[in-house]
Amino acid sequence: MRFRILRADNRSKARCGEMETSHGTVKTPVFMPVGTQATVKTLTPVQLRELGVEAIICNAYHLSLRPGEQIIKDMGGIHRFMGWDRTIVTDSGGYQVFSLRNISRTSDEGVEFSSPFTGERIFFSPERVIDIQIALGSDIMMPFDQCVPYPCERDDAKEAMLRTDRWTRRCLAALSKRESNGQALFGIVQGSVFRELRQESVERLGEMDLDGYAVGGLSVGEGRYLMNEVLGYTVEKLPWDKPRYLMGVGSPADILDAVEHGVDMFDCVLPTRNGRNGCAFTKGGKIKLFNSIYREDKRPLDDTCDCYTCRTFSRAYLRHLFFAGEILALTLVSLHNVYFFQEMMRGIREAVLAGTFVRFKEKFLEVQEKEDSK
Amino acid sequence: MRFRILRADNRSKARCGEMETSHGTVKTPVFMPVGTQATVKTLTPVQLRELGVEAIICNAYHLSLRPGEQIIKDMGGIHRFMGWDRTIVTDSGGYQVFSLRNISRTSDEGVEFSSPFTGERIFFSPERVIDIQIALGSDIMMPFDQCVPYPCERDDAKEAMLRTDRWTRRCLAALSKRESNGQALFGIVQGSVFRELRQESVERLGEMDLDGYAVGGLSVGEGRYLMNEVLGYTVEKLPWDKPRYLMGVGSPADILDAVEHGVDMFDCVLPTRNGRNGCAFTKGGKIKLFNSIYREDKRPLDDTCDCYTCRTFSRAYLRHLFFAGEILALTLVSLHNVYFFQEMMRGIREAVLAGTFVRFKEKFLEVQEKEDSK
Repeated sequence: MRFRILRADNRSKARCGEMETSHGTVKTPVFMPVGTQATVKTLTPVQLRELGVEAIICNAYHLSLRPGEQIIKDMGGIHRFMGWDRTIVTDSGGYQVFSLRNISRTSDEGVEFSSPFTGERIFFSPERVIDIQIALGSDIMMPFDQCVPYPCERDDAKEAMLRTDRWTRRCLAALSKRESNGQALFGIVQGSVFRELRQESVERLGEMDLDGYAVGGLSVGEGRYLMNEVLGYTVEKLPWDKPRYLMGVGSPADILDAVEHGVDMFDCVLPTRNGRNGCAFTKGGKIKLFNSIYREDKRPLDDTCDCYTCRTFSRAYLRHLFFAGEILALTLVSLHNVYFFQEMMRGIREAVLAGTFVRFKEKFLEVQEKEDSK
Repeated sequence: MRFRILRADNRSKARCGEMETSHGTVKTPVFMPVGTQATVKTLTPVQLRELGVEAIICNAYHLSLRPGEQIIKDMGGIHRFMGWDRTIVTDSGGYQVFSLRNISRTSDEGVEFSSPFTGERIFFSPERVIDIQIALGSDIMMPFDQCVPYPCERDDAKEAMLRTDRWTRRCLAALSKRESNGQALFGIVQGSVFRELRQESVERLGEMDLDGYAVGGLSVGEGRYLMNEVLGYTVEKLPWDKPRYLMGVGSPADILDAVEHGVDMFDCVLPTRNGRNGCAFTKGGKIKLFNSIYREDKRPLDDTCDCYTCRTFSRAYLRHLFFAGEILALTLVSLHNVYFFQEMMRGIREAVLAGTFVRFKEKFLEVQEKEDSK
């Protein structure tokens, strides 16, 4: 994997770059729609491509449980399996496994838990998650990390951070012994909201020559202020020449904040989940289609938007589809929301290239917040 | 509306033609996917267009209850509302209203029933359903008809047939008094499985110069044998130079039978409903994706099919999507099934033009039935 910074902003830490994976170029800062189960919910790969999506993220944990990574491997790998020939990142499933805490047993060796489908006991280790991700054939793999809840005691956060470091070394060692077709491996910085822990995590992971660095354990309830504080002292210590990925983030405001701190990659369920719930992102703020004010509204979701949904359908029609329980509603609003995020990222990249990112951010949020508060 | 027969088969009553509506040409025999709520379930208008669909059918009853025909009219009519610029037929909702028998009061004037959404008392008359359909702006309207269940006493069938005749005359009168932008009106032949009633219905409706003739009240449980018998003595009496429409039909076998009797138009929920249930039509018979034999099946649904789903995805992937509860599964199999019906109709039209329809039908059913019985 190659990463090239095209321009760094003078007035903030924002950067604009290009990532080359085995499946094409990804312009950064990039937002990756979530395709946990090897599908970005409700959208076809052709629709994603038309929306300009260059990378998505799938989940090794979910796919290893169902349908099983061996089936996907036998089908020719995850790209072939799901009909998506651009970049695929796979999350290891650390986050998912540690959400099952009451049914899992954790040791330095790994984590034992029950399959939610069969009840069968399953063991995840750093080596195992690398094997799964090699079988899937994603372009960028994430190591097995221990996630802590928020809030969290410093000692627990430290233990999880150190374990994540040890596990990452084992992932790297496992990867070096296996044939992987040039799959990249990132590190995941942990340490909750503790400055020294985050910085120790960065230092330790920095010793390994990983292909990129993710910040984990944020956007878990700590709020915008604390997240910015953590990003402030974490991101600047990360290797300059490697892509930086803020996992599970986020809202337009969170993304703009993080880009300002120098983050290059994002993923979040927000555009698709909100889409399925009838909530559309627009340049003028969010629209909740169940609201009766849209009953006879002839306007598109966003009259400055060029997506298929906005070019074709009124708010009144989309609202009708939601009330009639029609699946097309979920598809059309998901499609619009993914396009909204794509367009926002395009705007961010253009602004960084033009040296106007800070103004872009201010203006973007000003309009959104003014309308949201109406 | 214009209808032109391009070729009539020598060895059967099959015909191949072209219907011109205000929204384009429809090649017949045609299969119209069902878009009851102003959406063909799970599919975008662009996808329908790419599948080659030239006409769909929506439902005046459903749309008048929700969102209300006035909203659709204010939005510029049903084509604009749902983003579909080809032909739209609207069913009057007679079938739906008479399915609510226990809560409706029927007289010669019309039918009173409660809205399933608001409980509000609603009155449907022949004039009212014409007004609704004019507001919607469909290309082909259906008159308000009284449907009877199957089986049905001859006296009840006769009464309903005669009432349908009187109501059709009122529909035609109402239409002639209103501005309708050239919307066509069909008649609906009733009479259950009684030869004299069907023929009387045909004669009565034939006195009016309607734009086309539908056969209603079939495919309601009478079975393939009886349906063929009714079609045999009904369709041949219909005006030769007008399109003939068998409502709510049906399976590939039923469609092939009816084409052989001289029917030109069909609609049915089968491809989309089966698609949402994980059941795919293929040239080799039906495939139920929940079956475990498809768990690792690398083949497309139908390896002779050129649809997007078959060009891109394996049975194993589609099965995975169904098991994961993913909406994309419903979209992809619906898309394939609609394409299957489109392709079957294309095959039928080509065979009629080539004078080989009877052989086409035999061969088509032979392969299907052989595989279905495996």
